[in-house]
Amino acid sequence: MPRLHRHTLMIASLALMTATPLFAFDGLVDKQSFEIERFTTQSGETIPNVRVGWEAYGELNEARDNVILITHFFSGTSHAAGRYEESDVLPGYWDAIIGPGKPLDTDRFYIISSDTLVNLNAHDPNVITTGPATINPATGEPWGMDFPVVTIRDFVEVQRALLESQGIESLYAVMGPSMGALQAIEWASVYPERVERLVPVIGSGAADPWLVAMLDTWAAPIRLDANWNEGDYYDGEPPLDGLKAALTLITLNASHWRWANRTFTRDWADENRDPAEELGARYAIEQTLDNLSGVRAHTADANHLLYLVRANQTFEAGGESADEGLANIQAPTLMLYSEDDQVFSAEGVRRTAALIRQAGNEVTLETLQGNQGHLDGVLAIDQASDLLRDFLK
Amino acid sequence: MPRLHRHTLMIASLALMTATPLFAFDGLVDKQSFEIERFTTQSGETIPNVRVGWEAYGELNEARDNVILITHFFSGTSHAAGRYEESDVLPGYWDAIIGPGKPLDTDRFYIISSDTLVNLNAHDPNVITTGPATINPATGEPWGMDFPVVTIRDFVEVQRALLESQGIESLYAVMGPSMGALQAIEWASVYPERVERLVPVIGSGAADPWLVAMLDTWAAPIRLDANWNEGDYYDGEPPLDGLKAALTLITLNASHWRWANRTFTRDWADENRDPAEELGARYAIEQTLDNLSGVRAHTADANHLLYLVRANQTFEAGGESADEGLANIQAPTLMLYSEDDQVFSAEGVRRTAALIRQAGNEVTLETLQGNQGHLDGVLAIDQASDLLRDFLK
Repeated sequence: MPRLHRHTLMIASLALMTATPLFAFDGLVDKQSFEIERFTTQSGETIPNVRVGWEAYGELNEARDNVILITHFFSGTSHAAGRYEESDVLPGYWDAIIGPGKPLDTDRFYIISSDTLVNLNAHDPNVITTGPATINPATGEPWGMDFPVVTIRDFVEVQRALLESQGIESLYAVMGPSMGALQAIEWASVYPERVERLVPVIGSGAADPWLVAMLDTWAAPIRLDANWNEGDYYDGEPPLDGLKAALTLITLNASHWRWANRTFTRDWADENRDPAEELGARYAIEQTLDNLSGVRAHTADANHLLYLVRANQTFEAGGESADEGLANIQAPTLMLYSEDDQVFSAEGVRRTAALIRQAGNEVTLETLQGNQGHLDGVLAIDQASDLLRDFLK
Repeated sequence: MPRLHRHTLMIASLALMTATPLFAFDGLVDKQSFEIERFTTQSGETIPNVRVGWEAYGELNEARDNVILITHFFSGTSHAAGRYEESDVLPGYWDAIIGPGKPLDTDRFYIISSDTLVNLNAHDPNVITTGPATINPATGEPWGMDFPVVTIRDFVEVQRALLESQGIESLYAVMGPSMGALQAIEWASVYPERVERLVPVIGSGAADPWLVAMLDTWAAPIRLDANWNEGDYYDGEPPLDGLKAALTLITLNASHWRWANRTFTRDWADENRDPAEELGARYAIEQTLDNLSGVRAHTADANHLLYLVRANQTFEAGGESADEGLANIQAPTLMLYSEDDQVFSAEGVRRTAALIRQAGNEVTLETLQGNQGHLDGVLAIDQASDLLRDFLK
């Protein structure tokens, strides 16, 4: 039914807007699957039958030179824009800037995005990924902690294979927020001849010691949950409490006190239970964050979170030294960041911009405003619309 | 032996510095104990045999009007200055400003500090506190989660009883960092006629929603540790792993990325184990923080941490509404804070200053500089020496 409706809508829009291309993006998205028979990681391990999900908005032109690759953030998926069903409450995370007439104009660009390896949302029916929760064909059991460590570079290599499967050799632009910025930077560093424009949003050229330590605190609650069982929980109860605690930490670290204090009060979760009289009573903000994390935990996988933590911790642009990795970049670069970012420090972002500039590149560095710190790069990206439009001209 | 040495030193210093008072503070400190037979909490619960440790620097004068009360931070103790033994590696946390000739001049003031109820470091031989780890005389077993919820106001009431036991009715000043600022503010709000000067450092007039949520993330790792056993672990293994994870979170939240990035590198914990090849391998910063937390966890108590979380979450100056509570304050006030504080937001501190000022009070609001954010109020307090000296004139 929704599919039928989709086509009706498409026909209607074609009739009305004759100036738009034949296959204009109508806001409805299909998740597709891409498979690699044998994928070899940078550390030399082989993973058979790697599958990742992908989606695209707009049409690939004949020259195949209108491609923008979007790379997703830590807890994100390939769902950058549009809706799977018209009834979806929310569209993809960067829908504000992706679509017909928007800065990432689907009438002009072929915008493609894929789920990473070890994607957090492994149990979301709209996500296709390969990681510890995937069946290892060699054993018929989930990989668990036998899955090899993977890196941002491995994510890029899977994307490269996906793009090559569609005959795409070069990118008009590569762009992503947070962990997506790391992938975008890695693309421009490792394949400088393939990347024409680089847009890292709320991310920098290396995981600094602060980020390494913060990521470790995200992993800690999962390891503490007895259900985690050293990663071997696929036959039993998953470590949902640990995963929930990790997700709440991620929410707070990626946000800012302004957001919490503008959004919440000191109200109790239950007006009949005073936290000053009962240790088990709670404040509304605690309960709300817990509920949100609980919903997210049901489609997430705890081991995948641990592998994502490690992928981010190991990041240095180009692999060896961020200084050299960033010097390899040749693409004109637009960097967007928040001065209130508690995950990727403003200092690290500015240093990254300086290193890319040092190699003779043009780098535009602009701040994002808002109450959510790091997350303003995801949730308040529309403020960069003019900058993006100019940059992608 | 150290005690003998202490007296030798004191005699030597008396011989050399005849201008100093007879009992000049020599930098060596004795922990003393204060007991309340029956303490009734603000919520109406009775706790028999409340004991807390206290220490003092300088001498109480005959008029008993030279008293400065120091109130300690979340993970701190009454050990604000001096050393218990000359061989102690570190002195008390504010030793930089407390001592002969220092801003809190022990030749002039009687400076007193006590361990709070539910002090975190319950198993430290130099700490005396009453909380869940204490034997409940009614059962002969540790209280565990049967211990009543206590508040910042309860901490203040214990201090009031201690001071009154020494015939002290008014305070020349009350001063403390972080949770100590909450106690100092509460003193000035509830007993305005007893507090002549107020110095809240890195703290504000209420726990805002951001802080309520952050404190909850400190409690989460303890509750996740199976050894926590709903707080009933005194017969078995304590939840040290959860406690360690909580302490690491506290360290990071109370600090700043500048500290981590100036102090650490991206070095591996073990040069033979590459984190990109092995999920169990770690970075040096993770291992170091873990080791530090491990040392601290051995003298800390997990349940006490949960009760401290709650005491801080419930804080509103004066009890009902921070606006009214702060309007009660009559003491001239010096507030010190960091713009980089991630625990008590600069916005909350400024709002607190404005509310105290609104009641007609003189409030001096000054920033602290440094690389440690919140913790600069503890570890870099010496920069405020001139301000404190002037304020205490």
